[in-house]
Amino acid sequence: MNYLTADNIDFLAIGAAVIGAGGGGDPYMGKLMAKGALLEKGRVELIPAESVPDDALVIPSAMMGAPAVMLEKLPNGQEPEAAFKAVEAFFGKKAYAVLPIEAGGVNSCIPVYTAARLGLPLVDADGMGRAFPEIPMTTFTIGGVNAWPMVVCDEKGNKVVIEAASNFWVETLSRTATIAMGLASMIGLYVMDGKTLKEWGIKGTISLALEIGRRIIQASQSHISPVESILELTRGYRLFEGKVGDVQRELSTGFVRGKALFDGLDAFKGVRFELAFQNENLMALLDGKPCAMVPDLITVLDRETGSPITTEHLKYGQRVVVIGMPCSPIWRTEAGLKLVGPRYFKYDFDYVPIEELAGRSAI
Amino acid sequence: MNYLTADNIDFLAIGAAVIGAGGGGDPYMGKLMAKGALLEKGRVELIPAESVPDDALVIPSAMMGAPAVMLEKLPNGQEPEAAFKAVEAFFGKKAYAVLPIEAGGVNSCIPVYTAARLGLPLVDADGMGRAFPEIPMTTFTIGGVNAWPMVVCDEKGNKVVIEAASNFWVETLSRTATIAMGLASMIGLYVMDGKTLKEWGIKGTISLALEIGRRIIQASQSHISPVESILELTRGYRLFEGKVGDVQRELSTGFVRGKALFDGLDAFKGVRFELAFQNENLMALLDGKPCAMVPDLITVLDRETGSPITTEHLKYGQRVVVIGMPCSPIWRTEAGLKLVGPRYFKYDFDYVPIEELAGRSAI
Repeated sequence: MNYLTADNIDFLAIGAAVIGAGGGGDPYMGKLMAKGALLEKGRVELIPAESVPDDALVIPSAMMGAPAVMLEKLPNGQEPEAAFKAVEAFFGKKAYAVLPIEAGGVNSCIPVYTAARLGLPLVDADGMGRAFPEIPMTTFTIGGVNAWPMVVCDEKGNKVVIEAASNFWVETLSRTATIAMGLASMIGLYVMDGKTLKEWGIKGTISLALEIGRRIIQASQSHISPVESILELTRGYRLFEGKVGDVQRELSTGFVRGKALFDGLDAFKGVRFELAFQNENLMALLDGKPCAMVPDLITVLDRETGSPITTEHLKYGQRVVVIGMPCSPIWRTEAGLKLVGPRYFKYDFDYVPIEELAGRSAI
Repeated sequence: MNYLTADNIDFLAIGAAVIGAGGGGDPYMGKLMAKGALLEKGRVELIPAESVPDDALVIPSAMMGAPAVMLEKLPNGQEPEAAFKAVEAFFGKKAYAVLPIEAGGVNSCIPVYTAARLGLPLVDADGMGRAFPEIPMTTFTIGGVNAWPMVVCDEKGNKVVIEAASNFWVETLSRTATIAMGLASMIGLYVMDGKTLKEWGIKGTISLALEIGRRIIQASQSHISPVESILELTRGYRLFEGKVGDVQRELSTGFVRGKALFDGLDAFKGVRFELAFQNENLMALLDGKPCAMVPDLITVLDRETGSPITTEHLKYGQRVVVIGMPCSPIWRTEAGLKLVGPRYFKYDFDYVPIEELAGRSAI
């Protein structure tokens, strides 16, 4: 039996930020919240999806908006529970466990926080196997699960309960509410029963994040770069090494959007590398040609420590390694690519799996 | 005992648009909806506020957004009940009656529609005694009543339930939801008990509107302008007569904003007249000097028929009479003027009652 504790929450925060593909929020705030709750309330049991009874309710708990905002507009700590309990109240039924909706610094830690506060177990699964910028972008949408009732809460005590005509309307209505609240909110959504979770959830996301995080932290203690070890664990590719040049970043319509340009070092000397993001890294171009594309995972790591650098923390001069990792197979289906493929994000490319691209562009 | 029927709903729609001060929505849509429901479900009893038991629940039912939009984005007819019933469900208690929240073409008819559909009586009172553009602008806010729980529904089946830190947050969150829904929605809000209604409601608004409407319609049948009769009934003033020149109108942040310029006729020949509006008419200037200002009521009437012309229907060449009417005394208190006085709407004028201004500027 596994537990999340104040001792291993650092592993989760860092490891999830690697799978978070540049998004999912700055690990710092989420980790602080989760660690505080774990110290106060005790450990949280991590349970496999298979152990959730078919008719039991699981509710995802998460943060919504531009992660950078949370560093200044601090949560008051009541919002995640308020949103979670409002979803329970909607059904008049208590939740069996808390479910992470995505992997990412904040959004792997917020469900731990909520689980600790409410004395509930956390399910070792999620609906993305990475992070994505929009509400409908989950394997649950492919499975026909409603994102609503969705509850959006802020630190001022505002609460918005959304029922909607579709998961895309849930996105529109929750995004405008989150923007009105100041660009960051805490949410409960995608409530489902155990049967649905087992059919559509991506299994083992939390334990994978814990293991990645453990390798990064332990390697940094022994001054060994953990990049090879992460690539082995995730069947990933080293896309690029170099330093951050220009970063263009803006907050618009509730997202952190932009691109970053990199200058190659060593084996990548003279190579131009470009990364485009909307909360998450979406496209990686090596000398103008795609070398990884969404829904595959693209993550920037500190070249020395292997720590993940989220899109809002990219800055001039950082020495980095950019890695690419294959996404969950469900994202490569027709339904998956329609929801999160390059064309959805307005890139004029057909999706090519990273395994193929890496074969083409390897140096 | 009074009743609203398919035969007198025209009186209400037209009369309420006069009190609506240019806003409150085009009477046409609201009237059609109410008349249809009255023909199908039968008459609606109009009850005085005093007859509502102290502990009984009354719930306002209304339309929100830019009234002009409703002419193209048609309601499906379920939204007003859906919003109303969601407020009832929030409290787990049935409503005793439907309450109009403001006087205006759409928003005096929507509560009749809801009352007819649900078989409930309509209270002869409201929270404004006119129309205003923003949610907190009610006598109930002055009385400390929460506008929330507020429910916002659209024709696509979307529903948003808002609990908020203040009535101003209710405005922000419901406005952004309404904009996201396409600039028009149906709402339930400001639920209160009979005791609160009797203390803070403006009494007799519906019967006043019915009487104004009756005079306009009956006068038009006998080809007599009813303007004098309306002025007598409302203790109002004839501010201006002339024709509409330029109209500047835009839809922004969910409101119809703009101004209209008029050229004087007859006794007003050579006089420049200007009207500024945000859904409702807010300031009337005669040769650059205020002759009526919010919260007093400013309404444009057709010069021949006396029919009210709402802000979204002002157009070049219309021959009009502009009238001003004193608002309810509660709006002239310090709390009232803070909420709806000229300075709230960014006009650099201290409020002067229309009785004083009319004395100054009479021709």
